[in-house]
Amino acid sequence: MNFPDILAARAEQTARHLDAALAALPHSGVRDAMAYALRGGKGLRAFLVLEGAALHGIATAAALPAAAAIEAIHAYSLVHDDLPAMDNDDLRRGQPTVHVKWDEASAILAGDALQTLAFELLAAPGGAPDAARQVLLVHTLAQAAGAAGMVLGQALDIAAETAKAPLTLDEITTLQAGKTGALIGWAAQAGPRLAGDDPAPLARYSAALGLAFQIADDILDVTGDATKAGKRLRKDDAAGKATFVSLLGLSGAQTRAATLVAEAEEALFPYGERAETLRQAARFVISRET
Amino acid sequence: MNFPDILAARAEQTARHLDAALAALPHSGVRDAMAYALRGGKGLRAFLVLEGAALHGIATAAALPAAAAIEAIHAYSLVHDDLPAMDNDDLRRGQPTVHVKWDEASAILAGDALQTLAFELLAAPGGAPDAARQVLLVHTLAQAAGAAGMVLGQALDIAAETAKAPLTLDEITTLQAGKTGALIGWAAQAGPRLAGDDPAPLARYSAALGLAFQIADDILDVTGDATKAGKRLRKDDAAGKATFVSLLGLSGAQTRAATLVAEAEEALFPYGERAETLRQAARFVISRET
Repeated sequence: MNFPDILAARAEQTARHLDAALAALPHSGVRDAMAYALRGGKGLRAFLVLEGAALHGIATAAALPAAAAIEAIHAYSLVHDDLPAMDNDDLRRGQPTVHVKWDEASAILAGDALQTLAFELLAAPGGAPDAARQVLLVHTLAQAAGAAGMVLGQALDIAAETAKAPLTLDEITTLQAGKTGALIGWAAQAGPRLAGDDPAPLARYSAALGLAFQIADDILDVTGDATKAGKRLRKDDAAGKATFVSLLGLSGAQTRAATLVAEAEEALFPYGERAETLRQAARFVISRET
Repeated sequence: MNFPDILAARAEQTARHLDAALAALPHSGVRDAMAYALRGGKGLRAFLVLEGAALHGIATAAALPAAAAIEAIHAYSLVHDDLPAMDNDDLRRGQPTVHVKWDEASAILAGDALQTLAFELLAAPGGAPDAARQVLLVHTLAQAAGAAGMVLGQALDIAAETAKAPLTLDEITTLQAGKTGALIGWAAQAGPRLAGDDPAPLARYSAALGLAFQIADDILDVTGDATKAGKRLRKDDAAGKATFVSLLGLSGAQTRAATLVAEAEEALFPYGERAETLRQAARFVISRET
Protein backbone atom coordinates (compact mmCIF):
# COMPACT_ATOMS: atom_id res chain seq x y z
CA MET A 1 0.00 0.00 0.00
CA ASN A 2 1.21 3.50 -0.69
CA PHE A 3 1.23 5.93 2.21
CA PRO A 4 -2.05 7.80 1.53
CA ASP A 5 -3.89 4.45 1.41
CA ILE A 6 -2.32 3.34 4.70
CA LEU A 7 -3.29 6.67 6.27
CA ALA A 8 -6.85 6.36 4.97
CA ALA A 9 -7.18 2.80 6.29
CA ARG A 10 -5.98 3.87 9.77
CA ALA A 11 -8.37 6.85 9.70
CA GLU A 12 -11.24 4.54 8.78
CA GLN A 13 -10.51 2.16 11.69
CA THR A 14 -10.38 5.13 14.06
CA ALA A 15 -13.58 6.62 12.67
CA ARG A 16 -15.41 3.33 13.33
CA HIS A 17 -14.25 3.39 16.96
CA LEU A 18 -15.42 7.00 17.32
CA ASP A 19 -18.76 6.25 15.62
CA ALA A 20 -19.45 3.49 18.14
CA ALA A 21 -18.67 5.85 21.02
CA LEU A 22 -20.96 8.53 19.60
CA ALA A 23 -23.74 6.00 19.02
CA ALA A 24 -23.65 5.24 22.76
CA LEU A 25 -24.40 8.88 23.64
CA PRO A 26 -27.99 10.15 23.95
CA HIS A 27 -29.25 11.77 20.79
CA SER A 28 -28.77 15.55 20.79
CA GLY A 29 -27.78 18.39 18.49
CA VAL A 30 -24.45 18.50 20.29
CA ARG A 31 -23.82 14.84 19.43
CA ASP A 32 -24.58 15.58 15.77
CA ALA A 33 -22.15 18.50 15.84
CA MET A 34 -19.49 16.28 17.45
CA ALA A 35 -19.90 13.66 14.71
CA TYR A 36 -19.68 16.36 12.04
CA ALA A 37 -16.50 17.82 13.57
CA LEU A 38 -14.85 14.38 13.60
CA ARG A 39 -15.38 13.84 9.87
CA GLY A 40 -12.95 14.41 7.05
CA GLY A 41 -9.63 14.79 8.84
CA LYS A 42 -6.48 13.16 7.53
CA GLY A 43 -6.13 11.20 10.75
CA LEU A 44 -2.38 11.78 11.02
CA ARG A 45 -2.45 11.68 14.84
CA ALA A 46 -4.46 8.44 14.93
CA PHE A 47 -2.07 6.96 12.38
CA LEU A 48 0.90 7.85 14.63
CA VAL A 49 -0.76 6.14 17.61
CA LEU A 50 -1.58 2.96 15.67
CA GLU A 51 1.78 2.79 13.90
CA GLY A 52 3.75 3.45 17.10
CA ALA A 53 1.68 0.79 18.83
CA ALA A 54 2.35 -1.76 16.05
CA LEU A 55 6.10 -1.07 16.31
CA HIS A 56 5.90 -1.90 20.02
CA GLY A 57 3.85 -5.08 19.65
CA ILE A 58 0.50 -3.58 20.66
CA ALA A 59 -2.48 -4.83 18.62
CA THR A 60 -4.55 -2.26 16.75
CA ALA A 61 -7.64 -3.07 18.85
CA ALA A 62 -5.75 -2.19 22.05
CA ALA A 63 -4.47 1.08 20.57
CA LEU A 64 -7.74 2.28 19.00
CA PRO A 65 -9.01 4.04 22.17
CA ALA A 66 -5.85 6.18 22.19
CA ALA A 67 -6.10 6.80 18.43
CA ALA A 68 -9.75 7.84 18.77
CA ALA A 69 -8.97 9.98 21.82
CA ILE A 70 -6.29 12.03 20.08
CA GLU A 71 -8.56 12.64 17.09
CA ALA A 72 -11.32 13.81 19.47
CA ILE A 73 -8.91 16.25 21.14
CA HIS A 74 -7.72 17.47 17.74
CA ALA A 75 -11.31 17.93 16.52
CA TYR A 76 -12.26 19.83 19.69
CA SER A 77 -9.32 22.18 19.23
CA LEU A 78 -10.33 22.92 15.63
CA VAL A 79 -13.99 23.58 16.53
CA HIS A 80 -13.01 26.08 19.23
CA ASP A 81 -10.17 27.56 17.17
CA ASP A 82 -12.61 28.31 14.33
CA LEU A 83 -14.99 30.28 16.60
CA PRO A 84 -15.57 33.98 15.79
CA ALA A 85 -13.77 35.05 18.99
CA MET A 86 -10.78 32.91 18.01
CA ASP A 87 -9.65 32.51 14.36
CA ASN A 88 -13.12 33.20 12.96
CA ASP A 89 -12.99 30.60 10.18
CA ASP A 90 -16.08 29.62 8.23
CA LEU A 91 -14.54 26.76 6.25
CA ARG A 92 -12.77 23.62 7.49
CA ARG A 93 -12.00 20.43 5.58
CA GLY A 94 -14.02 21.88 2.71
CA GLN A 95 -17.21 22.24 4.78
CA PRO A 96 -18.84 25.01 6.84
CA THR A 97 -17.35 25.14 10.34
CA VAL A 98 -19.50 23.90 13.25
CA HIS A 99 -20.56 27.35 14.43
CA VAL A 100 -21.61 28.26 10.88
CA LYS A 101 -23.57 25.04 10.33
CA TRP A 102 -25.12 25.08 13.85
CA ASP A 103 -24.44 28.12 16.04
CA GLU A 104 -21.76 29.34 18.44
CA ALA A 105 -23.30 27.79 21.54
CA SER A 106 -23.45 24.36 19.85
CA ALA A 107 -19.84 24.74 18.71
CA ILE A 108 -18.66 25.62 22.22
CA LEU A 109 -20.53 22.67 23.71
CA ALA A 110 -19.53 20.22 20.96
CA GLY A 111 -15.87 21.16 21.44
CA ASP A 112 -16.21 20.80 25.19
CA ALA A 113 -17.83 17.38 24.86
CA LEU A 114 -15.26 16.20 22.31
CA GLN A 115 -12.52 16.95 24.83
CA THR A 116 -14.43 15.04 27.49
CA LEU A 117 -15.00 12.15 25.07
CA ALA A 118 -11.25 11.82 24.55
CA PHE A 119 -10.72 11.13 28.25
CA GLU A 120 -13.75 8.85 28.39
CA LEU A 121 -12.37 6.75 25.52
CA LEU A 122 -8.92 6.59 27.04
CA ALA A 123 -10.21 5.53 30.46
CA ALA A 124 -12.82 3.07 29.20
CA PRO A 125 -12.61 -0.47 30.63
CA GLY A 126 -10.14 -2.49 28.58
CA GLY A 127 -8.53 0.65 27.12
CA ALA A 128 -4.98 -0.49 27.90
CA PRO A 129 -3.08 -3.67 28.83
CA ASP A 130 -2.97 -2.49 32.46
CA ALA A 131 -4.45 0.30 34.54
CA ALA A 132 -1.14 1.99 35.40
CA ARG A 133 -0.38 2.51 31.70
CA GLN A 134 -3.92 3.71 31.12
CA VAL A 135 -3.47 6.35 33.84
CA LEU A 136 -0.15 7.36 32.26
CA LEU A 137 -1.86 7.89 28.90
CA VAL A 138 -4.58 10.03 30.51
CA HIS A 139 -2.05 12.08 32.46
CA THR A 140 0.28 12.69 29.52
CA LEU A 141 -2.62 13.55 27.19
CA ALA A 142 -3.88 16.12 29.70
CA GLN A 143 -0.39 17.60 29.93
CA ALA A 144 -0.09 17.73 26.13
CA ALA A 145 -3.54 19.28 25.60
CA GLY A 146 -3.68 21.76 28.47
CA ALA A 147 -2.27 25.09 29.57
CA ALA A 148 1.32 23.82 29.35
CA GLY A 149 0.78 22.34 25.88
CA MET A 150 -1.77 22.88 23.14
CA VAL A 151 -3.84 25.56 24.89
CA LEU A 152 -0.65 27.48 25.73
CA GLY A 153 0.28 27.40 22.04
CA GLN A 154 -3.18 28.67 21.08
CA ALA A 155 -2.96 31.45 23.67
CA LEU A 156 0.45 32.52 22.33
CA ASP A 157 -0.99 32.45 18.80
CA ILE A 158 -3.85 34.74 19.76
CA ALA A 159 -1.53 37.06 21.70
CA ALA A 160 0.67 37.28 18.59
CA GLU A 161 -2.21 38.78 16.63
CA THR A 162 -2.27 41.88 18.82
CA ALA A 163 1.48 41.98 19.63
CA LYS A 164 3.32 45.14 18.58
CA ALA A 165 6.28 43.27 17.05
CA PRO A 166 6.03 40.08 14.96
CA LEU A 167 7.23 36.95 16.75
CA THR A 168 10.85 35.81 16.42
CA LEU A 169 11.80 32.38 15.08
CA ASP A 170 12.33 31.11 18.65
CA GLU A 171 8.92 32.40 19.73
CA ILE A 172 7.13 30.82 16.76
CA THR A 173 8.93 27.54 17.39
CA THR A 174 7.76 27.57 21.03
CA LEU A 175 4.22 28.47 19.95
CA GLN A 176 4.06 25.63 17.46
CA ALA A 177 5.63 23.12 19.84
CA GLY A 178 2.52 23.70 21.94
CA LYS A 179 -0.12 24.29 19.33
CA THR A 180 0.59 21.31 17.06
CA GLY A 181 3.71 19.64 18.48
CA ALA A 182 2.29 18.50 21.81
CA LEU A 183 -0.52 16.37 20.36
CA ILE A 184 1.67 14.91 17.61
CA GLY A 185 4.26 14.07 20.27
CA TRP A 186 1.69 12.38 22.48
CA ALA A 187 0.32 10.39 19.54
CA ALA A 188 3.71 9.04 18.55
CA GLN A 189 4.59 8.10 22.15
CA ALA A 190 1.27 6.43 23.01
CA GLY A 191 2.34 3.07 21.50
CA PRO A 192 5.55 2.64 23.53
CA ARG A 193 3.70 3.85 26.63
CA LEU A 194 0.98 1.24 26.07
CA ALA A 195 3.72 -1.37 25.83
CA GLY A 196 5.59 -0.12 28.89
CA ASP A 197 8.58 0.71 26.64
CA ASP A 198 10.81 3.79 26.40
CA PRO A 199 9.07 6.43 24.26
CA ALA A 200 12.30 8.45 23.68
CA PRO A 201 13.00 7.48 20.02
CA LEU A 202 9.43 8.28 18.97
CA ALA A 203 9.55 11.49 21.07
CA ARG A 204 12.54 12.62 19.00
CA TYR A 205 10.87 11.51 15.77
CA SER A 206 7.67 13.37 16.54
CA ALA A 207 9.36 16.57 17.73
CA ALA A 208 11.00 16.89 14.30
CA LEU A 209 7.85 15.70 12.52
CA GLY A 210 5.59 18.18 14.36
CA LEU A 211 7.76 21.15 13.49
CA ALA A 212 8.12 20.01 9.87
CA PHE A 213 4.33 19.66 9.75
CA GLN A 214 3.82 23.24 10.89
CA ILE A 215 6.45 24.67 8.53
CA ALA A 216 4.70 22.77 5.73
CA ASP A 217 1.41 24.35 6.87
CA ASP A 218 2.93 27.81 6.58
CA ILE A 219 4.32 26.95 3.13
CA LEU A 220 0.89 25.61 2.09
CA ASP A 221 -0.72 28.81 3.33
CA VAL A 222 1.39 30.71 0.77
CA THR A 223 1.64 28.28 -2.15
CA GLY A 224 -1.47 26.16 -1.67
CA ASP A 225 -4.80 25.82 -3.42
CA ALA A 226 -7.71 26.69 -1.13
CA THR A 227 -10.01 24.23 -2.89
CA LYS A 228 -7.65 21.33 -2.25
CA ALA A 229 -6.85 22.53 1.28
CA GLY A 230 -10.54 22.86 2.17
CA LYS A 231 -9.92 26.00 4.21
CA ARG A 232 -9.11 29.65 3.62
CA LEU A 233 -5.47 30.34 2.88
CA ARG A 234 -3.20 33.39 3.01
CA LYS A 235 -4.83 34.56 6.23
CA ASP A 236 -1.50 34.90 8.07
CA ASP A 237 -0.05 37.21 5.45
CA ALA A 238 -3.22 39.32 5.42
CA ALA A 239 -3.06 39.57 9.23
CA GLY A 240 0.64 40.54 9.12
CA LYS A 241 1.51 37.54 11.30
CA ALA A 242 5.03 36.18 11.38
CA THR A 243 5.30 32.63 10.02
CA PHE A 244 8.18 30.30 9.21
CA VAL A 245 7.88 31.53 5.62
CA SER A 246 7.94 35.25 6.53
CA LEU A 247 10.96 34.65 8.78
CA LEU A 248 12.97 32.17 6.70
CA GLY A 249 11.72 32.93 3.18
CA LEU A 250 9.95 30.28 1.08
CA SER A 251 13.09 28.45 0.06
CA GLY A 252 14.60 28.73 3.57
CA ALA A 253 11.41 27.26 5.03
CA GLN A 254 11.46 24.41 2.50
CA THR A 255 15.09 23.62 3.37
CA ARG A 256 14.35 23.68 7.10
CA ALA A 257 11.36 21.35 6.66
CA ALA A 258 13.48 18.92 4.62
CA THR A 259 16.20 18.95 7.31
CA LEU A 260 13.61 18.18 9.97
CA VAL A 261 12.25 15.28 7.95
CA ALA A 262 15.80 13.88 7.73
CA GLU A 263 16.08 14.29 11.53
CA ALA A 264 12.76 12.50 12.00
CA GLU A 265 13.92 9.61 9.81
CA GLU A 266 17.21 9.41 11.72
CA ALA A 267 15.37 9.13 15.04
CA LEU A 268 13.76 5.93 13.70
CA PHE A 269 17.17 4.21 13.34
CA PRO A 270 16.60 1.83 16.34
CA TYR A 271 13.55 0.38 14.57
CA GLY A 272 15.33 -0.42 11.31
CA GLU A 273 13.19 -1.41 8.32
CA ARG A 274 10.12 -1.89 10.48
CA ALA A 275 9.65 1.89 10.70
CA GLU A 276 9.37 2.39 6.94
CA THR A 277 5.75 3.58 7.19
CA LEU A 278 6.71 6.22 9.78
CA ARG A 279 9.50 7.37 7.40
CA GLN A 280 6.90 7.68 4.64
CA ALA A 281 4.76 9.71 7.04
CA ALA A 282 7.62 12.14 7.62
CA ARG A 283 8.10 12.66 3.90
CA PHE A 284 4.33 12.92 3.44
CA VAL A 285 3.86 15.83 5.87
CA ILE A 286 6.05 18.12 3.74
CA SER A 287 4.67 16.99 0.38
CA ARG A 288 0.94 17.11 1.18
CA GLU A 289 -1.39 19.51 -0.62
CA THR A 290 -4.04 19.65 2.14
CA MET B 1 -17.73 23.58 63.66
CA ASN B 2 -20.96 24.72 62.08
CA PHE B 3 -21.61 23.70 58.50
CA PRO B 4 -20.54 26.91 56.68
CA ASP B 5 -17.18 26.74 58.51
CA ILE B 6 -16.68 23.08 57.56
CA LEU B 7 -17.52 23.93 53.95
CA ALA B 8 -15.08 26.87 53.96
CA ALA B 9 -12.29 24.73 55.43
CA ARG B 10 -12.80 22.03 52.75
CA ALA B 11 -12.85 24.72 50.04
CA GLU B 12 -9.60 26.17 51.39
CA GLN B 13 -7.85 22.77 51.30
CA THR B 14 -9.02 22.25 47.75
CA ALA B 15 -7.95 25.75 46.69
CA ARG B 16 -4.43 25.08 47.96
CA HIS B 17 -4.26 21.90 45.86
CA LEU B 18 -5.46 23.82 42.80
CA ASP B 19 -3.04 26.70 43.45
CA ALA B 20 -0.12 24.28 43.49
CA ALA B 21 -1.27 22.76 40.18
CA LEU B 22 -1.62 26.20 38.59
CA ALA B 23 1.79 27.27 39.88
CA ALA B 24 3.31 24.33 37.98
CA LEU B 25 1.92 25.65 34.66
CA PRO B 26 3.90 28.13 32.53
CA HIS B 27 2.92 31.70 33.12
CA SER B 28 0.27 32.93 30.65
CA GLY B 29 -2.83 35.06 30.52
CA VAL B 30 -4.84 31.85 30.24
CA ARG B 31 -3.35 30.59 33.52
CA ASP B 32 -4.33 33.87 35.22
CA ALA B 33 -7.87 33.53 33.88
CA MET B 34 -8.02 29.92 35.12
CA ALA B 35 -6.94 31.00 38.61
CA TYR B 36 -9.54 33.77 38.59
CA ALA B 37 -12.32 31.40 37.53
CA LEU B 38 -11.45 28.99 40.34
CA ARG B 39 -11.84 31.65 43.04
CA GLY B 40 -14.83 32.34 45.23
CA GLY B 41 -16.96 29.27 44.77
CA LYS B 42 -18.71 27.61 47.70
CA GLY B 43 -16.81 24.39 47.03
CA LEU B 44 -19.86 22.17 47.56
CA ARG B 45 -18.61 19.57 45.08
CA ALA B 46 -15.13 19.40 46.65
CA PHE B 47 -16.78 19.10 50.06
CA LEU B 48 -18.83 16.13 48.85
CA VAL B 49 -15.68 14.40 47.56
CA LEU B 50 -13.74 14.94 50.79
CA GLU B 51 -16.63 14.06 53.07
CA GLY B 52 -17.54 10.94 51.09
CA ALA B 53 -13.87 9.94 51.16
CA ALA B 54 -13.66 10.42 54.95
CA LEU B 55 -16.77 8.26 55.40
CA HIS B 56 -15.02 5.49 53.47
CA GLY B 57 -11.70 5.70 55.28
CA ILE B 58 -9.82 7.63 52.59
CA ALA B 59 -7.49 10.35 53.92
CA THR B 60 -8.06 13.91 52.77
CA ALA B 61 -4.67 14.01 51.02
CA ALA B 62 -5.65 11.02 48.85
CA ALA B 63 -9.00 12.59 47.97
CA LEU B 64 -7.78 16.12 47.21
CA PRO B 65 -6.96 15.41 43.53
CA ALA B 66 -10.59 14.34 42.99
CA ALA B 67 -11.89 17.33 44.97
CA ALA B 68 -9.73 19.71 42.94
CA ALA B 69 -10.69 18.00 39.69
CA ILE B 70 -14.43 18.40 40.22
CA GLU B 71 -14.02 22.09 41.11
CA ALA B 72 -11.97 22.58 37.92
CA ILE B 73 -14.73 20.95 35.85
CA HIS B 74 -17.36 23.07 37.60
CA ALA B 75 -15.34 26.27 37.03
CA TYR B 76 -14.84 25.42 33.33
CA SER B 77 -18.57 24.91 32.91
CA LEU B 78 -19.35 28.29 34.48
CA VAL B 79 -16.77 30.14 32.34
CA HIS B 80 -18.21 28.68 29.13
CA ASP B 81 -21.81 28.99 30.32
CA ASP B 82 -21.30 32.73 30.96
CA LEU B 83 -20.05 33.39 27.39
CA PRO B 84 -22.10 35.77 25.21
CA ALA B 85 -23.14 32.92 22.88
CA MET B 86 -24.36 30.93 25.89
CA ASP B 87 -26.03 32.59 28.92
CA ASN B 88 -24.28 35.93 28.34
CA ASP B 89 -23.65 36.73 32.00
CA ASP B 90 -21.34 39.55 33.06
CA LEU B 91 -21.36 38.83 36.79
CA ARG B 92 -20.39 35.65 38.66
CA ARG B 93 -19.60 35.21 42.35
CA GLY B 94 -19.83 39.01 42.66
CA GLN B 95 -17.08 39.64 40.10
CA PRO B 96 -16.94 40.32 36.35
CA THR B 97 -17.06 37.07 34.37
CA VAL B 98 -13.86 35.88 32.66
CA HIS B 99 -14.81 37.07 29.19
CA VAL B 100 -15.64 40.52 30.60
CA LYS B 101 -12.41 40.80 32.59
CA TRP B 102 -10.25 39.33 29.78
CA ASP B 103 -11.93 38.61 26.45
CA GLU B 104 -13.93 35.84 24.80
CA ALA B 105 -10.94 34.02 23.37
CA SER B 106 -9.26 33.90 26.80
CA ALA B 107 -12.49 32.67 28.37
CA ILE B 108 -12.87 29.88 25.79
CA LEU B 109 -9.25 28.79 26.27
CA ALA B 110 -9.32 29.11 30.08
CA GLY B 111 -12.46 26.96 30.21
CA ASP B 112 -10.87 24.42 27.86
CA ALA B 113 -7.70 24.24 29.95
CA LEU B 114 -9.66 23.97 33.22
CA GLN B 115 -11.38 20.90 31.85
CA THR B 116 -8.02 19.44 30.83
CA LEU B 117 -6.57 20.29 34.26
CA ALA B 118 -9.30 18.26 35.93
CA PHE B 119 -8.18 15.10 34.13
CA GLU B 120 -4.52 15.93 34.69
CA LEU B 121 -5.12 16.23 38.45
CA LEU B 122 -7.13 13.04 38.57
CA ALA B 123 -4.51 11.03 36.66
CA ALA B 124 -1.47 12.49 38.41
CA PRO B 125 0.92 9.96 39.96
CA GLY B 126 -0.28 9.06 43.45
CA GLY B 127 -3.77 10.36 42.72
CA ALA B 128 -5.49 7.22 44.06
CA PRO B 129 -4.71 4.15 46.17
CA ASP B 130 -4.41 2.07 43.00
CA ALA B 131 -4.38 2.64 39.27
CA ALA B 132 -7.61 0.74 38.52
CA ARG B 133 -9.58 3.03 40.86
CA GLN B 134 -7.87 6.06 39.34
CA VAL B 135 -8.99 4.96 35.86
CA LEU B 136 -12.52 4.45 37.18
CA LEU B 137 -12.58 8.01 38.55
CA VAL B 138 -11.38 9.40 35.20
CA HIS B 139 -13.91 7.34 33.26
CA THR B 140 -16.88 8.21 35.47
CA LEU B 141 -15.94 11.91 35.56
CA ALA B 142 -15.81 11.98 31.76
CA GLN B 143 -19.23 10.30 31.62
CA ALA B 144 -20.66 12.79 34.12
CA ALA B 145 -19.19 15.86 32.40
CA GLY B 146 -19.73 14.96 28.75
CA ALA B 147 -22.46 14.69 26.14
CA ALA B 148 -24.42 12.16 28.23
CA GLY B 149 -24.17 14.29 31.40
CA MET B 150 -23.42 17.94 32.07
CA VAL B 151 -22.98 19.05 28.45
CA LEU B 152 -26.24 17.31 27.52
CA GLY B 153 -27.98 19.29 30.30
CA GLN B 154 -26.49 22.52 29.03
CA ALA B 155 -27.55 21.73 25.47
CA LEU B 156 -31.12 21.00 26.63
CA ASP B 157 -31.07 24.27 28.59
CA ILE B 158 -30.05 26.27 25.53
CA ALA B 159 -32.58 24.46 23.34
CA ALA B 160 -35.27 25.35 25.90
CA GLU B 161 -34.64 29.05 25.29
CA THR B 162 -35.81 28.80 21.70
CA ALA B 163 -38.39 26.05 22.20
CA LYS B 164 -41.98 26.90 21.28
CA ALA B 165 -43.47 25.41 24.45
CA PRO B 166 -42.00 25.74 27.95
CA LEU B 167 -40.48 22.52 29.30
CA THR B 168 -42.54 20.12 31.36
CA LEU B 169 -41.57 19.07 34.88
CA ASP B 170 -40.13 15.79 33.55
CA GLU B 171 -38.08 17.61 30.94
CA ILE B 172 -36.68 20.10 33.47
CA THR B 173 -35.85 17.27 35.84
CA THR B 174 -33.91 15.49 33.05
CA LEU B 175 -32.18 18.74 32.09
CA GLN B 176 -31.07 19.40 35.67
CA ALA B 177 -30.01 15.82 36.28
CA GLY B 178 -27.44 16.48 33.57
CA LYS B 179 -26.61 20.12 34.12
CA THR B 180 -26.00 20.04 37.88
CA GLY B 181 -26.88 16.53 39.02
CA ALA B 182 -24.16 14.63 37.16
CA LEU B 183 -21.22 16.47 38.75
CA ILE B 184 -22.79 16.45 42.23
CA GLY B 185 -23.40 12.72 41.82
CA TRP B 186 -19.81 12.08 40.76
CA ALA B 187 -18.47 14.13 43.67
CA ALA B 188 -20.45 12.21 46.26
CA GLN B 189 -19.47 8.83 44.78
CA ALA B 190 -15.75 9.57 44.39
CA GLY B 191 -14.96 8.62 48.01
CA PRO B 192 -16.46 5.11 47.92
CA ARG B 193 -14.92 4.58 44.49
CA LEU B 194 -11.48 5.56 45.82
CA ALA B 195 -12.01 3.02 48.61
CA GLY B 196 -13.23 0.29 46.27
CA ASP B 197 -16.61 0.36 48.08
CA ASP B 198 -20.20 0.41 46.79
CA PRO B 199 -21.15 3.99 45.87
CA ALA B 200 -24.91 3.24 45.83
CA PRO B 201 -25.94 4.94 49.12
CA LEU B 202 -24.11 8.15 48.20
CA ALA B 203 -25.50 7.92 44.66
CA ARG B 204 -29.03 7.98 46.12
CA TYR B 205 -28.07 10.77 48.53
CA SER B 206 -26.60 12.94 45.78
CA ALA B 207 -29.42 12.37 43.31
CA ALA B 208 -31.85 13.87 45.85
CA LEU B 209 -29.34 16.53 46.91
CA GLY B 210 -28.61 17.63 43.32
CA LEU B 211 -32.27 18.09 42.48
CA ALA B 212 -32.93 19.91 45.78
CA PHE B 213 -29.96 22.15 44.97
CA GLN B 214 -31.41 23.10 41.60
CA ILE B 215 -34.91 23.72 42.96
CA ALA B 216 -33.30 25.94 45.61
CA ASP B 217 -31.48 27.77 42.80
CA ASP B 218 -34.78 28.43 41.05
CA ILE B 219 -36.32 29.65 44.33
CA LEU B 220 -33.30 31.87 44.92
CA ASP B 221 -33.66 33.28 41.42
CA VAL B 222 -37.14 34.53 42.43
CA THR B 223 -36.72 35.42 46.11
CA GLY B 224 -32.98 36.10 46.32
CA ASP B 225 -30.85 39.20 46.74
CA ALA B 226 -28.55 39.71 43.72
CA THR B 227 -25.88 41.35 45.92
CA LYS B 228 -25.67 38.31 48.18
CA ALA B 229 -25.96 35.88 45.25
CA GLY B 230 -23.15 37.62 43.35
CA LYS B 231 -24.93 37.10 40.04
CA ARG B 232 -27.89 38.49 38.16
CA LEU B 233 -31.23 37.07 39.25
CA ARG B 234 -34.71 36.84 37.75
CA LYS B 235 -33.24 36.07 34.33
CA ASP B 236 -35.36 32.93 33.84
CA ASP B 237 -38.59 34.78 34.42
CA ALA B 238 -37.53 37.57 32.06
CA ALA B 239 -36.66 34.95 29.42
CA GLY B 240 -40.03 33.20 29.91
CA LYS B 241 -38.21 29.94 30.78
CA ALA B 242 -39.96 27.23 32.73
CA THR B 243 -38.43 26.59 36.15
CA PHE B 244 -39.38 24.47 39.14
CA VAL B 245 -40.99 27.62 40.57
CA SER B 246 -42.99 28.43 37.45
CA LEU B 247 -44.18 24.82 37.27
CA LEU B 248 -44.78 24.04 40.96
CA GLY B 249 -45.37 27.51 42.38
CA LEU B 250 -43.10 28.97 45.07
CA SER B 251 -44.62 27.03 47.94
CA GLY B 252 -44.85 23.81 45.87
CA ALA B 253 -41.17 24.16 44.97
CA GLN B 254 -40.23 24.71 48.62
CA THR B 255 -42.18 21.61 49.66
CA ARG B 256 -40.58 19.51 46.91
CA ALA B 257 -37.09 20.69 47.94
CA ALA B 258 -37.77 19.84 51.59
CA THR B 259 -39.01 16.35 50.59
CA LEU B 260 -35.85 15.79 48.59
CA VAL B 261 -33.70 16.83 51.54
CA ALA B 262 -35.53 14.27 53.68
CA GLU B 263 -34.85 11.65 50.97
CA ALA B 264 -31.18 12.62 50.91
CA GLU B 265 -30.93 12.27 54.70
CA GLU B 266 -32.68 8.90 54.53
CA ALA B 267 -30.17 7.59 52.00
CA LEU B 268 -27.45 8.21 54.60
CA PHE B 269 -29.02 5.71 57.02
CA PRO B 270 -26.28 3.05 56.51
CA TYR B 271 -23.66 5.53 57.77
CA GLY B 272 -25.48 6.36 61.02
CA GLU B 273 -24.18 9.31 63.04
CA ARG B 274 -20.98 9.50 61.03
CA ALA B 275 -22.86 11.14 58.15
CA GLU B 276 -24.07 14.10 60.21
CA THR B 277 -22.04 16.59 58.14
CA LEU B 278 -23.58 15.29 54.91
CA ARG B 279 -27.04 15.70 56.54
CA GLN B 280 -26.14 19.29 57.35
CA ALA B 281 -25.06 19.75 53.73
CA ALA B 282 -28.47 18.60 52.52
CA ARG B 283 -30.24 21.08 54.79
CA PHE B 284 -27.75 23.78 53.77
CA VAL B 285 -28.47 23.55 50.05
CA ILE B 286 -32.08 24.61 50.51
CA SER B 287 -31.37 27.30 53.12
CA ARG B 288 -28.46 29.08 51.39
CA GLU B 289 -28.73 32.67 50.24
CA THR B 290 -26.05 32.44 47.53
